[in-house]
Amino acid sequence: MYRIGIDAMGGDYAPDVVVEGAIMALGEIEPESRIVLFGDKDRICKLLRMHNCPEDTFDIVPTTQVITMDDHPVKAFSSKTDSSITVGFNYLKRNAIDGFASAGSTGAMMTGAMYSSEVVRNVIRPAISVKIPTADGGNVLLLDVGLNVDCKPDVLYQYGILGSVYAQSVLGKEHPRVALLNIGEEKEKGNLVTKATYELMASTEKFNFSGNIEARDIFTGQIADVIVCDGFVGNTILKQTEGFYRIAKMRGINDDYIDQLNYEQEGGTVVLGINAIVLIGHGCSTAHAIKNMILQTEKSIKAGLVNNLQDIFRDF
Amino acid sequence: MYRIGIDAMGGDYAPDVVVEGAIMALGEIEPESRIVLFGDKDRICKLLRMHNCPEDTFDIVPTTQVITMDDHPVKAFSSKTDSSITVGFNYLKRNAIDGFASAGSTGAMMTGAMYSSEVVRNVIRPAISVKIPTADGGNVLLLDVGLNVDCKPDVLYQYGILGSVYAQSVLGKEHPRVALLNIGEEKEKGNLVTKATYELMASTEKFNFSGNIEARDIFTGQIADVIVCDGFVGNTILKQTEGFYRIAKMRGINDDYIDQLNYEQEGGTVVLGINAIVLIGHGCSTAHAIKNMILQTEKSIKAGLVNNLQDIFRDF
Repeated sequence: MYRIGIDAMGGDYAPDVVVEGAIMALGEIEPESRIVLFGDKDRICKLLRMHNCPEDTFDIVPTTQVITMDDHPVKAFSSKTDSSITVGFNYLKRNAIDGFASAGSTGAMMTGAMYSSEVVRNVIRPAISVKIPTADGGNVLLLDVGLNVDCKPDVLYQYGILGSVYAQSVLGKEHPRVALLNIGEEKEKGNLVTKATYELMASTEKFNFSGNIEARDIFTGQIADVIVCDGFVGNTILKQTEGFYRIAKMRGINDDYIDQLNYEQEGGTVVLGINAIVLIGHGCSTAHAIKNMILQTEKSIKAGLVNNLQDIFRDF
Repeated sequence: MYRIGIDAMGGDYAPDVVVEGAIMALGEIEPESRIVLFGDKDRICKLLRMHNCPEDTFDIVPTTQVITMDDHPVKAFSSKTDSSITVGFNYLKRNAIDGFASAGSTGAMMTGAMYSSEVVRNVIRPAISVKIPTADGGNVLLLDVGLNVDCKPDVLYQYGILGSVYAQSVLGKEHPRVALLNIGEEKEKGNLVTKATYELMASTEKFNFSGNIEARDIFTGQIADVIVCDGFVGNTILKQTEGFYRIAKMRGINDDYIDQLNYEQEGGTVVLGINAIVLIGHGCSTAHAIKNMILQTEKSIKAGLVNNLQDIFRDF
């Protein structure tokens, strides 16, 4: 039985879309899994009645406070002790749930993740990663997308391992190709950090290194299943993608693939390298996005992601 | 009279499209300007006859060698002494031409630029910049796009000046807004380098600093006329743009604005911070792109770009 902790109060349209997304997820999670909702019980129950959904479909942990976008994330996490995020992480810490996800304050979620879970032994720094749809119908995992904006080569090298393990255990790719984002395909290309990282990656046996990838090839899916870069570059890539999506919409372009690039609607950010399953959805998540976030959380739990990471980093 | 030096042998479709582009430019350059073509005189003259264009329309400097994409740029620049690029830079060095442009080997062009021209006094490092069309019908100058992949804050700060002077003198923008590419709008966002750069830029009187810009806003034209970033990030942005253009084409999307993002066809890379006007076109330049490259070169000469840069950096 997997206990999937969900912040019912997180996101711009919470708790409405969160409850709706949780109901949508019911048909797709394992029969014995339980979704645990943290939030305003009265509002949650009202929404459940509206959807003709019995109250006992979910475990509900009542909380009275909400960390909003106006709150200082670090301060709010410790001062709003009865907020859905803080209570959720307390449950996670004492293993009362197996994973926790929220579309609420990214800062508070990161604070919670760091306070409640330790970094996997031998991991230098955790990363946050995003799954980007590719034009060939697949997807590619990009990391880091903003947690570490100044990365040393050994950190980037480890991101290759983190990404590879996630792609293998959760995304179901057998021998994920891990590429290093760079400004040229040749190994001598790049800045000081990527050049040194290339050397480390080229001699590894911990993952299947496929060399450098240029940004023009991110979306083809042809070269990589996992793309490693520092958080500054990864965040820039995500935001440029968002910019293109917006411009396409502004220009009245309707295209199935371009629509998938609206990553704010599509998935969550996965925290990799800590001893817990933590997912952060986008503030503007729809019920569909919440459903995906719940399924992704369950998949990470089911795959034993944390154990797999602990194993590979054990004798690092 | 401006003497615009053009490498007739540079580019995938040279000399054909170069000669064609030069003929196209004739109607738009100043009547007293002269286009000086460097290359295989027989082939150039044959093409001119084909276009019913008298030979004396252009100054032709005959050369017998060509630096190809297979050549090592630095070695070829010094060993192929009678190549169109090497001879062109010799002319530029002794002021026999006022600017030099080529759609040939970027590496050889950069080598030539560095060998034949000194860096403007007090400029720490030159940059290469690209003009990107924005969705509002304008454009934005992005620099650096690949020359300096490891930039210190003082270098990025100077790029703000280089870009501002170019936008003002050549692109005709009165008080160009210079923004720093970053992963958040707030001044405390960023990596070590961008945070320190923000401090330098915020207190400058050398240009109109408009704060941080996120990659999602590059293409709107709303926030900046000039965007400063290091060469790794700038090159990644350009290549991601290229990737989107390709995917749009692959998906059968036809849109006026998206088509303009095919920057390989649209303009050239301008070398900023040296005591000469040097433009590098893309290898796959069409005649239209060559025409634009010629006009951009003339504009930079006419605007006194080098003098303007020398002035602002004089008492740095």
